[in-house]
Amino acid sequence: MEKIIVVKYRDVKLKSPILIGGLPGIGNVGKIAADYIVEKLNMVKIYDIFSEYLPPQVFINDDSEIHLVRNSIYYKKMRGKHDLLVLGGDFQGTTQEAQYELSYKMLELAKDMNVSEVYTLGGYSVGKIVERPRVLGAVTDKKLIPELEKNGVIFPKGEPGGGIVGSAGLILGLGMEIFKINGACLMGETSGYFADPKSAMEVLNVLQKQIGIKIDMSDIETRSKQIEQITGKMQEEFQNKQGKEDLGYFG
Amino acid sequence: MEKIIVVKYRDVKLKSPILIGGLPGIGNVGKIAADYIVEKLNMVKIYDIFSEYLPPQVFINDDSEIHLVRNSIYYKKMRGKHDLLVLGGDFQGTTQEAQYELSYKMLELAKDMNVSEVYTLGGYSVGKIVERPRVLGAVTDKKLIPELEKNGVIFPKGEPGGGIVGSAGLILGLGMEIFKINGACLMGETSGYFADPKSAMEVLNVLQKQIGIKIDMSDIETRSKQIEQITGKMQEEFQNKQGKEDLGYFG
Amino acid sequence: MEKIIVVKYRDVKLKSPILIGGLPGIGNVGKIAADYIVEKLNMVKIYDIFSEYLPPQVFINDDSEIHLVRNSIYYKKMRGKHDLLVLGGDFQGTTQEAQYELSYKMLELAKDMNVSEVYTLGGYSVGKIVERPRVLGAVTDKKLIPELEKNGVIFPKGEPGGGIVGSAGLILGLGMEIFKINGACLMGETSGYFADPKSAMEVLNVLQKQIGIKIDMSDIETRSKQIEQITGKMQEEFQNKQGKEDLGYFG
Amino acid sequence: MEKIIVVKYRDVKLKSPILIGGLPGIGNVGKIAADYIVEKLNMVKIYDIFSEYLPPQVFINDDSEIHLVRNSIYYKKMRGKHDLLVLGGDFQGTTQEAQYELSYKMLELAKDMNVSEVYTLGGYSVGKIVERPRVLGAVTDKKLIPELEKNGVIFPKGEPGGGIVGSAGLILGLGMEIFKINGACLMGETSGYFADPKSAMEVLNVLQKQIGIKIDMSDIETRSKQIEQITGKMQEEFQNKQGKEDLGYFG
Repeated sequence: MEKIIVVKYRDVKLKSPILIGGLPGIGNVGKIAADYIVEKLNMVKIYDIFSEYLPPQVFINDDSEIHLVRNSIYYKKMRGKHDLLVLGGDFQGTTQEAQYELSYKMLELAKDMNVSEVYTLGGYSVGKIVERPRVLGAVTDKKLIPELEKNGVIFPKGEPGGGIVGSAGLILGLGMEIFKINGACLMGETSGYFADPKSAMEVLNVLQKQIGIKIDMSDIETRSKQIEQITGKMQEEFQNKQGKEDLGYFG
Repeated sequence: MEKIIVVKYRDVKLKSPILIGGLPGIGNVGKIAADYIVEKLNMVKIYDIFSEYLPPQVFINDDSEIHLVRNSIYYKKMRGKHDLLVLGGDFQGTTQEAQYELSYKMLELAKDMNVSEVYTLGGYSVGKIVERPRVLGAVTDKKLIPELEKNGVIFPKGEPGGGIVGSAGLILGLGMEIFKINGACLMGETSGYFADPKSAMEVLNVLQKQIGIKIDMSDIETRSKQIEQITGKMQEEFQNKQGKEDLGYFG
Repeated sequence: MEKIIVVKYRDVKLKSPILIGGLPGIGNVGKIAADYIVEKLNMVKIYDIFSEYLPPQVFINDDSEIHLVRNSIYYKKMRGKHDLLVLGGDFQGTTQEAQYELSYKMLELAKDMNVSEVYTLGGYSVGKIVERPRVLGAVTDKKLIPELEKNGVIFPKGEPGGGIVGSAGLILGLGMEIFKINGACLMGETSGYFADPKSAMEVLNVLQKQIGIKIDMSDIETRSKQIEQITGKMQEEFQNKQGKEDLGYFG
Repeated sequence: MEKIIVVKYRDVKLKSPILIGGLPGIGNVGKIAADYIVEKLNMVKIYDIFSEYLPPQVFINDDSEIHLVRNSIYYKKMRGKHDLLVLGGDFQGTTQEAQYELSYKMLELAKDMNVSEVYTLGGYSVGKIVERPRVLGAVTDKKLIPELEKNGVIFPKGEPGGGIVGSAGLILGLGMEIFKINGACLMGETSGYFADPKSAMEVLNVLQKQIGIKIDMSDIETRSKQIEQITGKMQEEFQNKQGKEDLGYFG
């Protein structure tokens, strides 16, 4: 079989689209944010990407139907200068080779659709629950920084220290070096212990300003508050019992 | 070498065959069931599939002859509308890539032989010994559910929660997305601690009704009873000594 | 790079050669035996096989020169009906794919040189030191058994139970299924705790009778006796101190 | 994607260049030395090598810009008979295949540029802090030894016993066997517990004599002394507290 099988569902002409990538990762921040955009903007699927770079697994939905794991690209025509593309999916590539090959393929598809700019969304693990997650940034070109800063992105010198591992970094790195596409990575601070809609919400707040879109945020606000209550309680109980160190067991 | 080497032993014209897949896995349920069909229907081998996706291993039979590990496909001409194909073998592919490549190759061979429907057989681990294993199902299309239910398959909402890992799921997932072949996965409940002929027997009972075949079940009934006696005794002893938790050590 | 690079040093016409394979493995029995034949018969190298399927490593010889790890094939013209080829090397392939690809390549080279029969040499781990190692056999065709039995090979029913893992089995398995070359695997019993020249010596004794060659065995006899003395002493000391179980620490 | 992507930045005609390779490894000795040469000689980049054989990772620089991990080759035109090339980078290949493929690609590039000789730089772990690290050597041809000895390289018989693992050995091994390029590996003794500029300095001292270049060594001398002070203090403290054995915890 081909190592990556791209199934195309429709031919669309897009005007200079912006690509937003959000795959599972730290705190699932990127995936939560990307899936939320797809849902709230009623985006339409163009591509399914099946691959032996993903786990050999199917999910079963509530109708007992099989869902082969995949990545997908959705589009939405917008009023402004740029149409919108979102890349989401069930998994990131599971090996080093898988990461490179899938990121490269996404960029090939992006190039074909004349993508003008890429934003990858992810989580930045700070190892503890934060009241108000900041959104950190990294860019392919420092000229992009002023506007991002204006929209609320923080650029701490040399952070994250270990760089970015996985598709959120690789899509930008391969994008700038091989495909000459610029972009930024937006990383929401997260404990990293559980799926974190609050961090995703902050990322979305920044992203909306940055690319000039408007999404109904009420659902993700509700989910953020629910999680906040649960984790707040857990935190209290844990601190009462065993002190701060044990938060590591949440995950 | 080619990564998968298919050796073809005979040219047969089959009428709209049903493919049944049963490879080693949880409780070896799928393999026991598939091998039993091959044996009881005196099925004839069409293909051996050798591959570097399988362990680098040979078995030694009772005549001290070497048996290179493989997957194989057997056929049987039937009176009804559908001839029968069974896929069995010594191992599943040992890596993620191996799983995809071997499942895809099986589907290519299936497509060549005009397979109309696929049933993959497997075990569903419930972590304890069950008196009467149920047979759970997952399908490529929910239209298939009513007939399967009529024949005794259970469809619990959203189960198995983690989906299906390995060839039993992948053959169906790739089958529906890439090859446009429909089918179902039949999973016999099993403790997962040992090879489980009783679970395989229940899967075969359902399968016979579903595809309208009749197999002499006396041998597998005998084996099921033998295993039941052994595990029943072990269970008693363990419970006397250490309580229920220790059943985990059976495997 | 090519995944396997074959460097050919000379063109030789061989008459229906027998191929003997002995690579590192259990007790290093196969490698010791094969290297001994090459040395004692002053065999000449035809092929070096370099490969990314071998470790990314070089050895340093006593002259501080670098030796890239490899497999090699040596030949010797013989008076009888069959010339001789020996396959030896620093390592076996390190992964499943590596095992298959290297074994297959050896068989392609063997086929090109019209190899008539293959003997792979290896160790059979019995987990304790044995006074007089037996030589166990497995064959591609049971017709080969009577002559091997006459020459001292033992064929215990269904042993080794787990089959043979690695090149000693794979060369025969792929040989019989894909290349239609027959042969046998000769396995010397060994503790598996250290490199075992005594087991290799017994394998060589059987092999010489089987293929009608005569090798000066005095050196390997000396080495066997030295090892026997060392392990005998260690065994004594260990048994005095801690009892039999601790032999496992020899390796 | 191609498994190795070579980006070429300029066309240069070099006279019989010497290639020096220093990638991350034991004590980072090779990388520190190679990077120091590039810096002090103001060498100019010819090639970036991106690859799925490297980690799927980007670094973030102090300007918050993304740096996709890579290997690079730099050049410098020299007055003498040989121009200079240095291979450096963020990582070595992360798998066996990666090591072979990247080393082979470097040699292809080297061959294209008519490289006359290769020196690979690395560390030799001695497991303790050494006052004055010696520089050990290994060569592709023993004729190279006398001159290297004259310039301060030590050739202990049969050392390193386990050979050399990774690119420092492989570039020489593949170089001599496949590309007919000669060279030497220069290994600075190092504890292996931390990045070791002192060992790198000793390697550079030897290398300068050997290839007839002159580098300003003041910076690396300063860094060596700083490290020496830190490790000296740590050593003292550890020895006061727990004795010599505990040095293993430095790393």
